[in-house]
Amino acid sequence: METLTSHNITVMFLSLGVLLCAARLLGEIAQRLQQPAVLGELLAGVLLGPTVLGSLAPGLSGFLFPLQGVNAIALDAFAALAIVLFLLVAGMEVNLSTVWKQGKIGCKVGIASIIVPFFIAFAAALVIPEVLGRHEEADPLIFALFLAIAMSISALPIIAKTLMDMGLYRSDLGMVVVSAAIFNDLVGWIIFAVVLGFIGDPAGKGNAIMLTIVLTLAFAGAMLTVGRWLIHKVLPFVQAYTRWPGGELSFALILGLLGAAFTEWIGIHAIFGAFIAGVAIGDSSHLRERSRVIIDKFVSFIFAPVFFASIGLKVNFLTYFDFRLVLTLLLIACVCKLAGGAIGARWGGMLPREAWAVGFAMVSVGAMGIIVGIIALEAGIIRPRLFVALIVMAIVTSMLSGPSMRLLLRAEKKWRLRDILSSKLFLRELKTTSRREVIHEMTVTACEAEGLEGLDAQGVAKAVWSREEALSTGIGNAVAIPHARIEGLQRSLVVVGISATGIDFDAPDGKPAKVIFLILTPGNDPSPQLGLAAEIARLFRDERMADNVVRTKNFTDFLALLRAGTQ
Amino acid sequence: METLTSHNITVMFLSLGVLLCAARLLGEIAQRLQQPAVLGELLAGVLLGPTVLGSLAPGLSGFLFPLQGVNAIALDAFAALAIVLFLLVAGMEVNLSTVWKQGKIGCKVGIASIIVPFFIAFAAALVIPEVLGRHEEADPLIFALFLAIAMSISALPIIAKTLMDMGLYRSDLGMVVVSAAIFNDLVGWIIFAVVLGFIGDPAGKGNAIMLTIVLTLAFAGAMLTVGRWLIHKVLPFVQAYTRWPGGELSFALILGLLGAAFTEWIGIHAIFGAFIAGVAIGDSSHLRERSRVIIDKFVSFIFAPVFFASIGLKVNFLTYFDFRLVLTLLLIACVCKLAGGAIGARWGGMLPREAWAVGFAMVSVGAMGIIVGIIALEAGIIRPRLFVALIVMAIVTSMLSGPSMRLLLRAEKKWRLRDILSSKLFLRELKTTSRREVIHEMTVTACEAEGLEGLDAQGVAKAVWSREEALSTGIGNAVAIPHARIEGLQRSLVVVGISATGIDFDAPDGKPAKVIFLILTPGNDPSPQLGLAAEIARLFRDERMADNVVRTKNFTDFLALLRAGTQ
Repeated sequence: METLTSHNITVMFLSLGVLLCAARLLGEIAQRLQQPAVLGELLAGVLLGPTVLGSLAPGLSGFLFPLQGVNAIALDAFAALAIVLFLLVAGMEVNLSTVWKQGKIGCKVGIASIIVPFFIAFAAALVIPEVLGRHEEADPLIFALFLAIAMSISALPIIAKTLMDMGLYRSDLGMVVVSAAIFNDLVGWIIFAVVLGFIGDPAGKGNAIMLTIVLTLAFAGAMLTVGRWLIHKVLPFVQAYTRWPGGELSFALILGLLGAAFTEWIGIHAIFGAFIAGVAIGDSSHLRERSRVIIDKFVSFIFAPVFFASIGLKVNFLTYFDFRLVLTLLLIACVCKLAGGAIGARWGGMLPREAWAVGFAMVSVGAMGIIVGIIALEAGIIRPRLFVALIVMAIVTSMLSGPSMRLLLRAEKKWRLRDILSSKLFLRELKTTSRREVIHEMTVTACEAEGLEGLDAQGVAKAVWSREEALSTGIGNAVAIPHARIEGLQRSLVVVGISATGIDFDAPDGKPAKVIFLILTPGNDPSPQLGLAAEIARLFRDERMADNVVRTKNFTDFLALLRAGTQ
Repeated sequence: METLTSHNITVMFLSLGVLLCAARLLGEIAQRLQQPAVLGELLAGVLLGPTVLGSLAPGLSGFLFPLQGVNAIALDAFAALAIVLFLLVAGMEVNLSTVWKQGKIGCKVGIASIIVPFFIAFAAALVIPEVLGRHEEADPLIFALFLAIAMSISALPIIAKTLMDMGLYRSDLGMVVVSAAIFNDLVGWIIFAVVLGFIGDPAGKGNAIMLTIVLTLAFAGAMLTVGRWLIHKVLPFVQAYTRWPGGELSFALILGLLGAAFTEWIGIHAIFGAFIAGVAIGDSSHLRERSRVIIDKFVSFIFAPVFFASIGLKVNFLTYFDFRLVLTLLLIACVCKLAGGAIGARWGGMLPREAWAVGFAMVSVGAMGIIVGIIALEAGIIRPRLFVALIVMAIVTSMLSGPSMRLLLRAEKKWRLRDILSSKLFLRELKTTSRREVIHEMTVTACEAEGLEGLDAQGVAKAVWSREEALSTGIGNAVAIPHARIEGLQRSLVVVGISATGIDFDAPDGKPAKVIFLILTPGNDPSPQLGLAAEIARLFRDERMADNVVRTKNFTDFLALLRAGTQ
């Protein structure tokens, strides 16, 4: 019986723990800086792998992440499982009905944003393969197909996140972009699977390739029709006769694992089977939100970070960083995707400005491009130099996409309360006790805070008070939201004041306000005020919330309560 | 770069998928039969491993679960991760404050139920080691210590589940048992860790052993005091400044992984570090229920089944099944644990009958015994014969514990609504339209159902109607619960009737009843009626629930809706 030695086990848990810790930490920091989490997660691998730690302390790096032996196998196996589960979740997020509803425009954008980059990149790869870093022994056709795929795939999760941040997710534009990205994902992965079929057969026996392609298309077709229907029929039985939510969880994972095994067996990559299984499961209206959330959170916050960090361990990003290649790839990617998306949107009848915004949205390659890159590297089709360039391209396009859309649509990032709150504008214990005094105290705090010295405290307090006199702002459940729009204010700000005894704000339920939010927003735009007021009302829907706030000891406790909710 | 081949990946996902599928399926069946899920999960491994599949189709078994090579390593690594996460969750369930609250009695039971079995088993192992299947080369002292541990550890999750089933979890007796089991777990694992320290040093150098033991106790002590305090302080920061609930999830897992690596490194098993880390995290009142649930569900329904099934793959359970050894072990285990628990309870001042019930509760060895067994086998301390006997002992004691407690306390299993419902007592469309007719229609259905022919339909209908006349049973939200206690009825039964148009049951909110539950319970006991009525009221707290029920197509859909809730 072959078992892991104690040393293997120590290294395995230590390396997993360190990898997860670094990936999550840098992922969180990236998000704070308005960047995709995957950027931080990759960077964690780069820091821990040959690029940084491997150069500074080769012994430690070799101890934690050996390239050979039992631990290397265990980490590879874990990464393979992680990526399969990540694609299962990505598939579950694909909502086929969204594509149907948006119908034509979405499909047109989807088609154009695949075809344009695909053919430009394909042509480029055939014409200038050396510039693009083809492996000497790689088949030119396969190399070209691969590069074409890497350029034409898009990153649904990052696109969806960007749109949500801008408050455009549910807009017409947002739905076109999302349905195009779904279409793009679905078609892109099927083409990718077919390309992988070619690789499975390096000798080039036509029959074997054809068989793989036929099986791939048959699998995708069957899963998205009969399989989808069957899953929809079976799910109620699973829910009715197994422990909840365990049955549904296991059901989804078993389908994902078996789908992965099947597609790997027919000669394409395991992730494709997991993705298609995910689409088939996620499409059922019987699937409960709760199971989806459990799988999604566990995979997004545990498996995915480890996988993306493990990519950073694979090569030395500095040694293989080729500035010219990165720039070439970036240029091709940006121009192709931008053009493809915009052409599709114009073709679908959208206005020029909107069409460009759609184009910029589709530019982001993100996680999916990274996955294509690692597969190509492991299959020996591309050299480390191109791999590094692909990764950088995927990351940079994701970083560009959001800001450029924002610029074009002049859309403000939709600030959420917790992004605005700051410990400087947090008054743990209000000194004053009457409504007017409290408003004055909180306004002075706001105006004295860093960067806002220009405001006239008396004028602001007067504006808030005259609004308050017109109609009192006690909204019940011991919360009040005095507010005003202030000319010349650059960005929204919220001051929080807590009063254990409570201050009368003339609330409909008669309760004195224990938590007071002073909301000051720029004069020219009414929407942030409404959004913030609605968010506060939602947070304090539970009547015990205000008392929980009174019990918090400091700003961190207060923020934790708002984000994580009560027990 | 060493990577898994396509064949390895195919086998890995196929074997994981098959293992998870079989384990969950048999686990669910075991639970239906009122047995612990771990029984079914183990059985899945026995069926797929050398015992059954390996005998019938050695080729297939060897293909799916090879004993050597990359796939064996990957499965072992996955099982090691699974058991570490399982122990992390088990640790998070340990509630130290419960032990403090129950104070003396719990500790007394805990102490007695460790000491008595420990010393009896220890003595037996020294006196009759051959009978108990000691490995020839194993150190007699270590062997004896191991057997003593295996006999004195108890299965908190199974004990808690049994108590919940009997409705005794929140009773005084229940709290004593739970706190004793927690105490037992905590002390048992610490002793176990110390014993593992001995094994880490087969040469018997006293210094190394002492160092391991000191480090173990220092680690446990530090984690349960300073570590626990630090975690409690840090959690609000994690909640306040990271994405929710991802930050908390990762935080818990990172601590578990690093704890596992540390204890494996100092020479004891990785699971111990994960367990102690779990206790330290789970004890913080800042930890939100939602994160706990996500980790718990994912681990209990994905990782744990794979781990327990993988144990069944290790040896041939038929070849190594030794009836005399199994019986000897079972006898020692039952007598020791029963005596230990009962003595402790009497010592704590409980009445004899209750004391015996506590003893029977502590008999269950369950999952923890299995874990001790597999570690001993892999460390070469015990032979496969004893390993098989240990597993059987662990399972059988868990199966005995519940029924014997029930018999002793004459406690009925607390039936939940979904256990009682049956497709035979489900009227998708009521034929009648008035209150009286509906009660009659549903009563006739009940009395005609299998096994209940003895009931007099007219008499039952009359009893229900006279109850209904006294005070109408429409409880609002379009639900009515006509009911009666029937002399001579052996067990509770519930008939469900659905009426799309609604039937007037004089509800306080004036809505006609669309979902009618006819509750018939035995005449001598008022509690099931109240329990069922409360459960129905809770299920239909949401006013849309009744309309969702009307939209269900059949009994399965209905049951799925009750168990999994609405979207």
